[in-house]
Amino acid sequence: MKLQRHPANPILLPDPSSDWETYNVFNPSVVHYNGLFHMHYRAQGLDWISRIGYAVSLDGIHWNRLLRPVLEPHNTSDARGVEDPRVTVLEERFYMCYTAYGNEFAGKGVPTHAGGGVMPMIAVSSNLITWEPLGPIVQGEDNKDHVLFPRRINGHYIALHRRPPQVWLAESEDLFHWPAERMRSIFGPRPDNGWDEKRVGGNGVPIETEQGWLMLYHAYNEQHVYRLGVCLLDLEDPSQVIHRPKEFIFEPNELWELRGDVPNVVFSCANPVVDGTVHVYYGGADHVIGLATCALDALLDFASHG
Amino acid sequence: MKLQRHPANPILLPDPSSDWETYNVFNPSVVHYNGLFHMHYRAQGLDWISRIGYAVSLDGIHWNRLLRPVLEPHNTSDARGVEDPRVTVLEERFYMCYTAYGNEFAGKGVPTHAGGGVMPMIAVSSNLITWEPLGPIVQGEDNKDHVLFPRRINGHYIALHRRPPQVWLAESEDLFHWPAERMRSIFGPRPDNGWDEKRVGGNGVPIETEQGWLMLYHAYNEQHVYRLGVCLLDLEDPSQVIHRPKEFIFEPNELWELRGDVPNVVFSCANPVVDGTVHVYYGGADHVIGLATCALDALLDFASHG
Repeated sequence: MKLQRHPANPILLPDPSSDWETYNVFNPSVVHYNGLFHMHYRAQGLDWISRIGYAVSLDGIHWNRLLRPVLEPHNTSDARGVEDPRVTVLEERFYMCYTAYGNEFAGKGVPTHAGGGVMPMIAVSSNLITWEPLGPIVQGEDNKDHVLFPRRINGHYIALHRRPPQVWLAESEDLFHWPAERMRSIFGPRPDNGWDEKRVGGNGVPIETEQGWLMLYHAYNEQHVYRLGVCLLDLEDPSQVIHRPKEFIFEPNELWELRGDVPNVVFSCANPVVDGTVHVYYGGADHVIGLATCALDALLDFASHG
Repeated sequence: MKLQRHPANPILLPDPSSDWETYNVFNPSVVHYNGLFHMHYRAQGLDWISRIGYAVSLDGIHWNRLLRPVLEPHNTSDARGVEDPRVTVLEERFYMCYTAYGNEFAGKGVPTHAGGGVMPMIAVSSNLITWEPLGPIVQGEDNKDHVLFPRRINGHYIALHRRPPQVWLAESEDLFHWPAERMRSIFGPRPDNGWDEKRVGGNGVPIETEQGWLMLYHAYNEQHVYRLGVCLLDLEDPSQVIHRPKEFIFEPNELWELRGDVPNVVFSCANPVVDGTVHVYYGGADHVIGLATCALDALLDFASHG
C-alpha cells in the first residue's frame, strides 16, 4: 500500500514576488468544510521567519491564496516563527495546533534550541481567518507535532503530541490545562525497522473509523530521510495501538521532495477524507506543497492487517 | 448631514502586478458576518473585463485579498464582465446581486448597449467564495443597480432594481421568478433639484430600523457628477417613500474621486452597519475604493426630517 501522487504536483509554490512567502511554503493543514478545502500553510520569506498563510479551493488541487498571512508571531514566545499548523473542526469551532518558536523561552525548563525554544500551541477561530491563541499544551520541553482529535473521548479533549522520539497522548477538560500526570506514550521509533528507527511524530487529524482511529505519522531513519506510516488506535482509548504495519506508505522520490530547503523530506500535517479518498497534503523538502491520495478502505485495510 | 471620509482612504488600490485587477478596483459589496468584514469588489485588468474579487478584514479598513477572482464571466451573457456586486445575508445564505454584461444578448428585447446588453443577475453561496448563478430579475431591458432586502416582507422576497431613470421594486416567491406585474416604481430623479436631477439608483442593502428602511442611493446631474443621497421607505411596503431629504450626503471631492477612470464619481454598493456606525464603501472615479461613515442615529434622523 503506497499513496499515489497527484499529477498536478506540486500544488502550491513559494512566491518570489512576496516578502513573507518568498522561499518556502510547506507543511499545510487542510480541512474540508462547507463545500470548500481550506488550507493553512507554513511559509518562509525574506526574514526566514515562519508565518501561516491561508488558501481556499473548490477541488483541493487549485488554490486561491490570501495575499497576506493569517497568523504571525506576536510576542517573544513565537518571535522566530509559527510553524506546522494542524486544524481540527471540533464542536463547531476551529482549533489550530501550531508550533511557536521563540526568542526567549517562556517555560520553566531548559530551552532545547540554543537561545530559544518551542511550544506546542493551540489557537481557536470561528472563521478560519482570525485566530486567538489559547495557550500551549506543555511548556519547558521540546514538544511539537501536536494535533487535536475531532471529538471528545469519554468527555475529554484529546491531543497527540511528541516527546522525542515518541508520540504521546494528552487529555484536557477545557483545552487550557493538560495535566502532566495524564500524559502517556503511545508508540516510539522501531530501532530494527529501518525507515522509522530514529524518531516518530503525528501527521494530520486522526481519522475515525468503526475499527479505530486511523493515525498517519512521519518518521525518519539514521540517514534522516522522512517517510510516512500509518497505524490503528483504539477508538475509546487511543493510547492503545491496535496494529502498526511494518512498511511505510510514502517516501521522498520526486526531485522536489529529494532536494529543496531540507533534503529528503515528505512531511504531512493533513489527511482529510473527502468522498472516500484520503487526501494527504505534505511539504516536499520544506520547500513546496504536494498532494498524495489513497482510498480510505484500502488504507484502513492496510492499517489493520498490513 | 454629510458622510465623513476615513483618514486611511483610499483603502484598496488596483494591483499593477496582477493580470485581472491591474487598472481598477471599485464598487465593492461589504457584509459584516461572523466577526469579519467580507468584501466583494469589481476589478478590471489587462483585458478590461470586469471580474469580482474577494478580500477579508478584521477592522473594515485593512484588507487581505485573494490572489484570484471569485466570480468571472462564464458564458456569452456575461462575457464582457460581471459588475457591481451587492451581497445580502438572507435566511442563512448569501445572495449576490451583480450586473452581467454580455457579448450576445440572452433576453427578448433590444440590447441597450450596441452589440451587447446587461442583465440584473442573482447568485447564491453558502461560503462567500463559490457562487452559483440563479438567474436574472428581468431580461431584455437596461436594468441593474439591484439589491435584495435582508428579509422577506409579507412572505415575499423583495429587490430594488433600476429602470432608468427610476428606482423600482420587484417581488418574488422563490428568487427565480419576478413577475412583471408586481414591479413598481419607487422614486425617480427630481428635475429641479440639481444633484439628483437626471438619474437615480440604489446603493447597498437597505438598513432596517424601527422607523422604516433606510435606503441610500446614488444620483447624477446634468454634468454627470455622481453623488449619494438617502431616503426612508415604509417597513411593510418599501415602495412607499416616507421621506426624502433634498440634500445629498456625499459628493466627490478628493482628487481620486474627481479623477480616475471615470471622473467625478462616488458610487456605493455597500452600507453595512457595525456598532452603530454606517460604513459606506464606494468606488472613487471607477478606480479605487474608499470608506466614509456616519452614525446610524444621525443618518436616520436626517432621512426622517432632513
